[in-house]
Amino acid sequence: MKDIFGSIEAGGTKFVCAVGVGPEQYFRKVFPTTSPKETINKAIDFFSYYEKEGNLKGIGIGTFGPVNLDKKSEKYGVISNTPKLNWIDTNIHSPFQENFKIPIEIETDVNIAALGEYTWGGARYLNNFIYLTIGTGVGGAAIINGSLLKGSGHPEMGHIFLPKLKDDSFEGGCPYHYDQCFEGLVSGASISLRCGKKAFEVKETDLVWGLVAKYIALALVNYIYTLAPQKIVIGGGVMKQKHLLSKVRELVVRYLNGYNYSNINQDTINDFICAPSLGDNSGVLGGFVLAKNNFNLV
Amino acid sequence: MKDIFGSIEAGGTKFVCAVGVGPEQYFRKVFPTTSPKETINKAIDFFSYYEKEGNLKGIGIGTFGPVNLDKKSEKYGVISNTPKLNWIDTNIHSPFQENFKIPIEIETDVNIAALGEYTWGGARYLNNFIYLTIGTGVGGAAIINGSLLKGSGHPEMGHIFLPKLKDDSFEGGCPYHYDQCFEGLVSGASISLRCGKKAFEVKETDLVWGLVAKYIALALVNYIYTLAPQKIVIGGGVMKQKHLLSKVRELVVRYLNGYNYSNINQDTINDFICAPSLGDNSGVLGGFVLAKNNFNLV
Repeated sequence: MKDIFGSIEAGGTKFVCAVGVGPEQYFRKVFPTTSPKETINKAIDFFSYYEKEGNLKGIGIGTFGPVNLDKKSEKYGVISNTPKLNWIDTNIHSPFQENFKIPIEIETDVNIAALGEYTWGGARYLNNFIYLTIGTGVGGAAIINGSLLKGSGHPEMGHIFLPKLKDDSFEGGCPYHYDQCFEGLVSGASISLRCGKKAFEVKETDLVWGLVAKYIALALVNYIYTLAPQKIVIGGGVMKQKHLLSKVRELVVRYLNGYNYSNINQDTINDFICAPSLGDNSGVLGGFVLAKNNFNLV
Repeated sequence: MKDIFGSIEAGGTKFVCAVGVGPEQYFRKVFPTTSPKETINKAIDFFSYYEKEGNLKGIGIGTFGPVNLDKKSEKYGVISNTPKLNWIDTNIHSPFQENFKIPIEIETDVNIAALGEYTWGGARYLNNFIYLTIGTGVGGAAIINGSLLKGSGHPEMGHIFLPKLKDDSFEGGCPYHYDQCFEGLVSGASISLRCGKKAFEVKETDLVWGLVAKYIALALVNYIYTLAPQKIVIGGGVMKQKHLLSKVRELVVRYLNGYNYSNINQDTINDFICAPSLGDNSGVLGGFVLAKNNFNLV
């Protein structure tokens, strides 16, 4: 019987659960993120079948944050002051570890997506890149010298402060930084608040996308100057808006204004800023990488 | 005869040259940065004496940038589009390598300062921290997982875009980003332009320091959210202004507004944001680290 692995991409809007080994062979199930108890129980039910069969060897969980990833801490696995208020103080690790006698690894949602793109996607063979997701919230991960950037805890790249555009009177959607931070200006939740409808219902011709493109480009410039990446991969629901990626590319070149060591210009920008080559599955596939890495260490 | 090492901290205002082994034993000489030829020749003269004696085993150079650090490139050692216009296209490596038959290593000025603080200063035993200098220009370096963050080239942290404060009508001092980037707002050169006198001549009671503190704090928030450092060390001439550090600490806590995983708050901020414990010598001492590392590899 072949070994398989489990993966969870725990997002603010939906949970994606999967079992398999990699992009060639896996099965996934998606359900909405509701209360912590209900949502986690659905995920446990999904994996129970495979665990009873005996061939599920580990589960990798990528969750929204901020989440405590310090294994020595009493609060390991606990989600802290997230804008998703009913999830504050939820332990997303222990219910799985208590139910299953296999290794359960956790990371941030963007970190597993970065692992997916690094292992099977467009960032293969790159030792320094950024994975950004602009969905319900905004999150970023970086691979630096071939390892996930962790530092003290994990990055919260969505919350960097950006210049507020002069023609923008929106008061912002971040409960902590209002209109000052990237997430407060361009997350799906912020766009909904700004436009009075779901982000995916906002027409392609709406002027809001011009503002959104500018804010995304400003944020990318900041990441470029801070991390000097070889590539930036941007996923998430907001990026499904047509034309956004090409506008962002054009603006990044304009804002850098020739000042960068990495030779980012009109000719190189299409390879430098890309959509995830694994589509919506960077995260859930990266969960297998996380689960397998752990299994190798056991 | 004891082995000694050479170090150069090549800054926009002054060159600091030194020979020695570490903080306990070294000799340094400082001269102003003028034309590339004159300045580099003075540095070569300084080291020639020790090289002829035969105990100088290598030189580590930390330079302002952007500089090409790719050893495989034809432009290795060449400074590119810097705001210090007469230094554009200067090779800061080859004149030393041609004159001396010892290993010559180069890095950015802030990278060697980070190496100094990491080896002998306040960041010892920390695997993730940021070294920032706010002098003639603004530069940043990061140690990530115990190694210098390099990525594609090197970071240019001074050029991140910041919110422009409402009560600030200054048009900015960055030749590439005007008043949009951190350096354009708070570098020594920008403060001089803003105030019509050298930054160190601006009185402690001048209202400009309130603005400067806010911009520095906004930039630190962005670095914190992007890199999740365990500590931020800030040096450079501008930081010699009394009260600036304590204002910055207070504002960083206020701007984070409780949203950070790393538990940065009123009680921890004094240990988190610090002046360089090696004072003005983080860079020149870090040059020895760079020179020694290289020597070990030869």
